[in-house]
Amino acid sequence: MKVVLIISDGLADQPIKELGGKTPLQIANTPAMDEIARTGVNGIMDSIAPGITPGSDTAHLAILGYDPYQIYEGRGAFEALGAGLEVKINDICFRGNIATINNKFTVLDRRAGRIKDDAEELVRAVNGIKLNFFPDIQVVIKHTVEHRCAIVLKGPHLTRMISDTDPHKINHQINESQPLNGSSEAIRTAHIVNLLTREIHKKLDADPINMKRRIKGLLPANAILMRGAGIIPKIRPITEIYGIKALAIAVGALYKGVCNAVGMDLINVQGATGDYETNTVVKAKAAVENLPRYDFILIHVKATDNASHDRDVMKKIKMIEKVDKLANYLLQNTDPDKVIIAITADHTTSTESGEHTGDSVPVSIRGKTVRVDSVQRYSEIDCAQGGLGRIRGINLLPILLDYAGKSKKFGE
Amino acid sequence: MKVVLIISDGLADQPIKELGGKTPLQIANTPAMDEIARTGVNGIMDSIAPGITPGSDTAHLAILGYDPYQIYEGRGAFEALGAGLEVKINDICFRGNIATINNKFTVLDRRAGRIKDDAEELVRAVNGIKLNFFPDIQVVIKHTVEHRCAIVLKGPHLTRMISDTDPHKINHQINESQPLNGSSEAIRTAHIVNLLTREIHKKLDADPINMKRRIKGLLPANAILMRGAGIIPKIRPITEIYGIKALAIAVGALYKGVCNAVGMDLINVQGATGDYETNTVVKAKAAVENLPRYDFILIHVKATDNASHDRDVMKKIKMIEKVDKLANYLLQNTDPDKVIIAITADHTTSTESGEHTGDSVPVSIRGKTVRVDSVQRYSEIDCAQGGLGRIRGINLLPILLDYAGKSKKFGE
Repeated sequence: MKVVLIISDGLADQPIKELGGKTPLQIANTPAMDEIARTGVNGIMDSIAPGITPGSDTAHLAILGYDPYQIYEGRGAFEALGAGLEVKINDICFRGNIATINNKFTVLDRRAGRIKDDAEELVRAVNGIKLNFFPDIQVVIKHTVEHRCAIVLKGPHLTRMISDTDPHKINHQINESQPLNGSSEAIRTAHIVNLLTREIHKKLDADPINMKRRIKGLLPANAILMRGAGIIPKIRPITEIYGIKALAIAVGALYKGVCNAVGMDLINVQGATGDYETNTVVKAKAAVENLPRYDFILIHVKATDNASHDRDVMKKIKMIEKVDKLANYLLQNTDPDKVIIAITADHTTSTESGEHTGDSVPVSIRGKTVRVDSVQRYSEIDCAQGGLGRIRGINLLPILLDYAGKSKKFGE
Repeated sequence: MKVVLIISDGLADQPIKELGGKTPLQIANTPAMDEIARTGVNGIMDSIAPGITPGSDTAHLAILGYDPYQIYEGRGAFEALGAGLEVKINDICFRGNIATINNKFTVLDRRAGRIKDDAEELVRAVNGIKLNFFPDIQVVIKHTVEHRCAIVLKGPHLTRMISDTDPHKINHQINESQPLNGSSEAIRTAHIVNLLTREIHKKLDADPINMKRRIKGLLPANAILMRGAGIIPKIRPITEIYGIKALAIAVGALYKGVCNAVGMDLINVQGATGDYETNTVVKAKAAVENLPRYDFILIHVKATDNASHDRDVMKKIKMIEKVDKLANYLLQNTDPDKVIIAITADHTTSTESGEHTGDSVPVSIRGKTVRVDSVQRYSEIDCAQGGLGRIRGINLLPILLDYAGKSKKFGE
């Protein structure tokens, strides 16, 4: 049997006053998700551990079977891999935000007005930028989605042990990157990152595209905020651990990067955009089309998490219902005797606070080998009554592959 | 948000024949606890791990977020800290029972008739006692509650690797403390403890207070049974791990000691006695008064456990109802938008056998960020149906702090 896993990012939530203390998932109309729950086995899952708030990167690593406490080496390398950049063992990678700053380096908008159209060209203008006094450092920058980009520093004596330049809030100056330990590598890397930040600003601020943006009344995209310095972790790919072929259908660079790092193939799907406009059903179609060639297909949808970060309850409900259409397509176009369908979230995102939380997430699994329990609805509360009980993220892939008959016996 | 956690010691129970197979918690009238359950999220918890019978010390360490298998170094240091004694890194500490023995060193009563009034003075009489041939050993003994005291040995070449002198039952001789390994330190420490036991008996037996007790027909308190040799564990305080201010409202020295060792402040509350006479509501009042100054307040109530150890079913029910009054005061005087209230037990104590068991304990958590499940009553059975599923003690504090919005994200 094959496995298709839907991860709806930040799908789970905390109670919301305007929903009478219910969660968006409890309120949304989700007939397909509910069918998975009703005809399947259900449970709740802590991506990392109970009460631990996961990042998107650590959550996905855990759900793909790795202990992030053992292997996590920062977010950056996943962003870079997901952007399609080549990442070598000692490269230091960052997630970048294309942003707007004033001449005092105060951040006016962390996303340059959620820039879309000009972002790719502006990033291309600073890719390969040279740094005075550091001729041995190569800078690779690549645009990904909306205001996002990935940055890779290549060269000798670099380390990921430095702090972000991204202040993570507006009306604050860009941070000076600081060494996180006393090593000469950390002092050197922080210095390079601060120099790079100034050089990028100088170049972008004078770029003709930004001149035009100012004339149009748009915010200039004149800085790149850097965060999540990371190196590529040393891990054994899931393809090798489980002897499977695996595919990820995701748009966000971070998710593509994590999946790529664990040995999964990636495909791009026309119409899947990683934002609110995304077409979720085309992802389901792509999954069904690729099922003959893969044992395990992960479909990632980001928009549910975006809605929570934007603290927009109605949009979250709408995005959940979009994910339900994806689930529905899978139900309509796969045979439960041949395909295990599972749905879960990587973490809870509270739409009240706009932040990730450490709450568990619901998980439902359908297929001929699962023991059907009495849960009738896919929700944070209903699934807690299910036959799976409370599991960890690291348990999910072994459970799914076991249902698919692909588990290896330990012992005799 | 803030957190108030009620730990009712040994609250959970096994089925009791005379209660028709129900537990005291199922039978007791507990409207406030039930309200927490009904308006909150519920689950069951293994303080240490399923089927593992916790001690009070290891259970509390686990519930405060530590793995007792990693850090536990004996009970003694917690007793000493809780008694308000200064404990240095190499001091060997013990829990002591003021007891009655005959001239053959047979234990007639392990608590000298649950001595209360004379205990403090008798302990003061042996504090600082000198041992022949061991001028470099300093002995500090301090009374705590009822028949209980803490003993600290200070000096060179001591170890905690020795056995108890407390035989843990009556009509048996006081044990000779034995070295638990072949080290010269263990042989020396066991020898010192046995010598100390004889010296204390000599002094107490001749004390005028015991003369008076004999005349009054009371059991003489003429020995101290020593157990739980321990040193202070090396741990990072919860205040530092989670960046919180934490307060414990407890009476028993052991509980005060554990809380103090993990960095919590302690307060004494008039009327809270650590025994059946304790006023539980004053503890709740003290918690509410201190909420402005603390992020996390733990209220410990011992009397439920005492009733089980005394195998007194009706008293246990009565004590549970006393704890319910505490819970009620918290419910009436805190805002669920601002304060998370949780109730649990450190372990199950079977009133049938009078012993701790490894059964899970029920946990209920109320507050605006929790996803309300369908559990209607706070009991060992009802809570197993709840939205938390089955958690470990080590998960509880992260879960509570996450509900309070004080969780730190791991990853990005």
